[in-house]
Amino acid sequence: MSKSLTEKLSELSKRRGFFFQSSEAYGGAAGFQTFGPEGAEIKRNVENSWRETFSQSLGHREIEAPTIMPEAVFEASGHLDTFDDMIIECPECGTSSRADHLVEDNTEIDEAEAFSNKKIEELIKEHNLVCPSCGEELTGVKVEDFNLMFETSIGPGSGQPGYLRPETAQGIFVEFPRLKEYARNQLPFGITQIGKAYRNEISPRKGLVRVRELTQAELEHFIDPDEDRPPIEDVEDVELKLYSRKEQDKEDGKAVKMTVKEAVDDEVVESDWIAYYLGIAKQWYESIGIDMERFRFRQHQNDELSHYASDCWDAESHVDGDWIEITGFAYRGCYDLKKHNQYSRDDYTIFKEYDEPKTVEKNTVSPDMGYLGPEFGDKAGKIKEKLEALAEEEPEAFEADKVLVEVDGEEYAVPSDKCNFSVEKVTENGEHILPQVVEPSFGIDRIVYTVLAHAFDEDEVDDEKRTVLHLSESVAPTEVAVFPLMDKEGLGEKARDVADMLRDQGFSVKYDDTGNIGKRYRRQDEVGTPVCVTVDYETLEEDPETVTVRDRDSTEQERVEISKLAEYL
Amino acid sequence: MSKSLTEKLSELSKRRGFFFQSSEAYGGAAGFQTFGPEGAEIKRNVENSWRETFSQSLGHREIEAPTIMPEAVFEASGHLDTFDDMIIECPECGTSSRADHLVEDNTEIDEAEAFSNKKIEELIKEHNLVCPSCGEELTGVKVEDFNLMFETSIGPGSGQPGYLRPETAQGIFVEFPRLKEYARNQLPFGITQIGKAYRNEISPRKGLVRVRELTQAELEHFIDPDEDRPPIEDVEDVELKLYSRKEQDKEDGKAVKMTVKEAVDDEVVESDWIAYYLGIAKQWYESIGIDMERFRFRQHQNDELSHYASDCWDAESHVDGDWIEITGFAYRGCYDLKKHNQYSRDDYTIFKEYDEPKTVEKNTVSPDMGYLGPEFGDKAGKIKEKLEALAEEEPEAFEADKVLVEVDGEEYAVPSDKCNFSVEKVTENGEHILPQVVEPSFGIDRIVYTVLAHAFDEDEVDDEKRTVLHLSESVAPTEVAVFPLMDKEGLGEKARDVADMLRDQGFSVKYDDTGNIGKRYRRQDEVGTPVCVTVDYETLEEDPETVTVRDRDSTEQERVEISKLAEYL
Repeated sequence: MSKSLTEKLSELSKRRGFFFQSSEAYGGAAGFQTFGPEGAEIKRNVENSWRETFSQSLGHREIEAPTIMPEAVFEASGHLDTFDDMIIECPECGTSSRADHLVEDNTEIDEAEAFSNKKIEELIKEHNLVCPSCGEELTGVKVEDFNLMFETSIGPGSGQPGYLRPETAQGIFVEFPRLKEYARNQLPFGITQIGKAYRNEISPRKGLVRVRELTQAELEHFIDPDEDRPPIEDVEDVELKLYSRKEQDKEDGKAVKMTVKEAVDDEVVESDWIAYYLGIAKQWYESIGIDMERFRFRQHQNDELSHYASDCWDAESHVDGDWIEITGFAYRGCYDLKKHNQYSRDDYTIFKEYDEPKTVEKNTVSPDMGYLGPEFGDKAGKIKEKLEALAEEEPEAFEADKVLVEVDGEEYAVPSDKCNFSVEKVTENGEHILPQVVEPSFGIDRIVYTVLAHAFDEDEVDDEKRTVLHLSESVAPTEVAVFPLMDKEGLGEKARDVADMLRDQGFSVKYDDTGNIGKRYRRQDEVGTPVCVTVDYETLEEDPETVTVRDRDSTEQERVEISKLAEYL
Repeated sequence: MSKSLTEKLSELSKRRGFFFQSSEAYGGAAGFQTFGPEGAEIKRNVENSWRETFSQSLGHREIEAPTIMPEAVFEASGHLDTFDDMIIECPECGTSSRADHLVEDNTEIDEAEAFSNKKIEELIKEHNLVCPSCGEELTGVKVEDFNLMFETSIGPGSGQPGYLRPETAQGIFVEFPRLKEYARNQLPFGITQIGKAYRNEISPRKGLVRVRELTQAELEHFIDPDEDRPPIEDVEDVELKLYSRKEQDKEDGKAVKMTVKEAVDDEVVESDWIAYYLGIAKQWYESIGIDMERFRFRQHQNDELSHYASDCWDAESHVDGDWIEITGFAYRGCYDLKKHNQYSRDDYTIFKEYDEPKTVEKNTVSPDMGYLGPEFGDKAGKIKEKLEALAEEEPEAFEADKVLVEVDGEEYAVPSDKCNFSVEKVTENGEHILPQVVEPSFGIDRIVYTVLAHAFDEDEVDDEKRTVLHLSESVAPTEVAVFPLMDKEGLGEKARDVADMLRDQGFSVKYDDTGNIGKRYRRQDEVGTPVCVTVDYETLEEDPETVTVRDRDSTEQERVEISKLAEYL
């Protein structure tokens, strides 16, 4: 049986230092991967390219918040209550499984995540599903919620509960009061963050796709929905492959190609902000080498939406028969800022000045305390408050002779003429609004995985099988490898000079003089180095000096003058 | 009373977005700081500059390991047992304090960390120390060990215990079996990592100096101590300010200036590897703007050494009356690899080939199982193993008539002639050695703090007080700020053009058109922007076009042609 792409990539990754399971010497910790030297470099290149595209070029600013945050933040954000997966524990062997995956893996059902626990229990019964580990019947076993946040304790003793953030976004939202000050209280502005997030997955998978510790790159764009529109003209002709809710509901539905402008005009994508970022992102994916033939944008079904999102599209890449979510584009509305505004002691609104001051009518009362005091005793203060509230909410109540208010369960009647009700004109300069949030959220590990998978290829060169990564130059760990044909008779020195020259010219360069030249080419093919430069005997003989330049993809070789190398590359 | 530098810096940091306590809207989580836009940029610049200096330029490679690691790793590394601070809990109010700091803060004693818990208890009694929170006497209260690792649980149910790594280093050590493969089993090689580390400090301080979540940049240089020497000639003339153990012991001891070469020749620094990295690091600190007048290298006292280190020097910066440890240079020997080699199932040695094969004598036995079997029954196998071990360890035992071995607590006598003891000549091609490790370990947060503190200044410009950060260009968040004098009559457009032009030329540029020009200069002074460029009415009138260029430090202004700006900067 031939190996799958996933298996081949995993082997190559171990051999060449892209990524591998962590702490394998101790049996490995499931869901934790280490990026080796080559993988870490690709990941860094992807991150830097993201930063350039989504932060610097758009004028957004990047922050760095801690990964451990106090419980109060996640009480407010809703993660403590709702950031759950469905778990079922085998009563026989104790193995915990993700109940929705159990259903998906053993029935025709594709998307079970949105079902209720009860529905999943029914499906387990209906299909007679069993424990994947020991085969015990699971009918009748309770499906429960399992919170995916890693918990820890801050400080000595029993300490204070803290959680490893499940998304970098909360580190931005919670600091909004400071960030708005930094932005001089002017919308719109965007804040980005690249950093670790943590999800205590019930069943992590091998590789980079479902891990417990991941890197996110998130952009929170704070906007005033009444005023701010995206510069959609910058991307209006970018072509998107959109798999809309409507198409997903069809028997023979499929992803449809259209431009950003068409998607907005035809309301396939409801929010122009989301459409704008789909356009920016599409160009970026292409630039880092993701294959657009194995790529689509998919709209979330209504029952699939996160607790905070009103519309959401995923970017998905196709690897080894599976569609992998690599980015979520969510319109989060004012959900998070509103929650933090309610739960915390800080102000998460922006004061929005009117173009010109507005005069509004305001109903006020000024109750006669000389009457209320003697009449109602220690209830007088509370009665006054009730009258004030009533004036705003129900001014017509003051048209009657007596005004009725309830205090501590009892009803009191106050003569209208003791209330001094009046309508005043007040000038207001603006109002406090809660900004809305547009959030493109990128899973860097999965993007790196896609980049590697889409670059992976096997072909034949000189009748020998070759493994090659067709990495884009923008993410390849090494841009140029420099070899001496052999490390003798001055070839080594000359090659080192060439390597240093190219380094000085800003290329990332690797020097290698071990093994025969064919092996060295294969080594560089396997880590995706676009170009190899070889110093050979001809180099020393010729004037001007030339070297052999070999192209990774075509394996063709050419002689180039050393002085013209940088230009040639 | 005038404010301390720490207070002034903290105020500026909040106002200008360098750093501030996290989650303050919820009362703040002690020991966790968020880097705002400007601070995150400085931090990133420091990290990139570190990467260039300590990884890329030296030919080392960087990896990225997870921050959560399984318990087995820290059992082996010793952190589970020994990564403790001394804690004392007030029986009255329950406040936990660091016991050694309590002693240091209230007595003449400077370094109490190295004392035993018992000694600290005695000092508390002797000095009648009380709870810093409620004043209760602490005499007689037990001083206990508190492990500083954050614990969490991996996976569902009771899970598997995991810890947030207390140093990035273990992520490198534990993967050594893969990394050596990647390095083709050749020493020396260096592996670096920049990432988060966590320490559940008992009493975190405000600001960046003692935090619970920090960023480390660590370099683990794996060497063969018998073969590998550092290229010390590259740094031999670099001048170091060394505060040696000897000087520390003197009444009037002080840091002494000498070159790297002198430090090695005079054996002030014992390891030439440590001396080499002190030289590299000294140049780096200078390049990022650390003030060498407020800086020294201090040797650890013997009782201060970590459980793994044989010699250690700290780089220390002086801020607001305190010396702050910003880097540790440790010779870790083979401590970590040896431990992982013992505790795990993998091989942490390097096979070192001899220049030519060596013939060695090897003592062997080949016990007569036809005799041992019937004679000793089910003990025969174990007796054979014992005899084999004895042949290697104590060959003379086989000279007697009978050989005595102990198995399961009982002694057995085996006739020598049934052992078939012989000395054989064996040819060996090499041996397995445990590499030794040289480790420079940098605290990035403290380095950023030092950079800010040493750059901070207050002066007067045009009779007005000004706050200015004299940041080095290599770390300043913005290299050039571009302003239009006003955003009208085409000045705004022209200024935006100039900003774009400079961006294209590779500068980090900020554009600002709000507030009067004086305010904008102050704003840039406060975030350390070295140069401001202003487009004014003269710009539009002149041919060739010129702009005003203003220097942050001198505040002097000059007119420069736009076409020559890049060159001028």
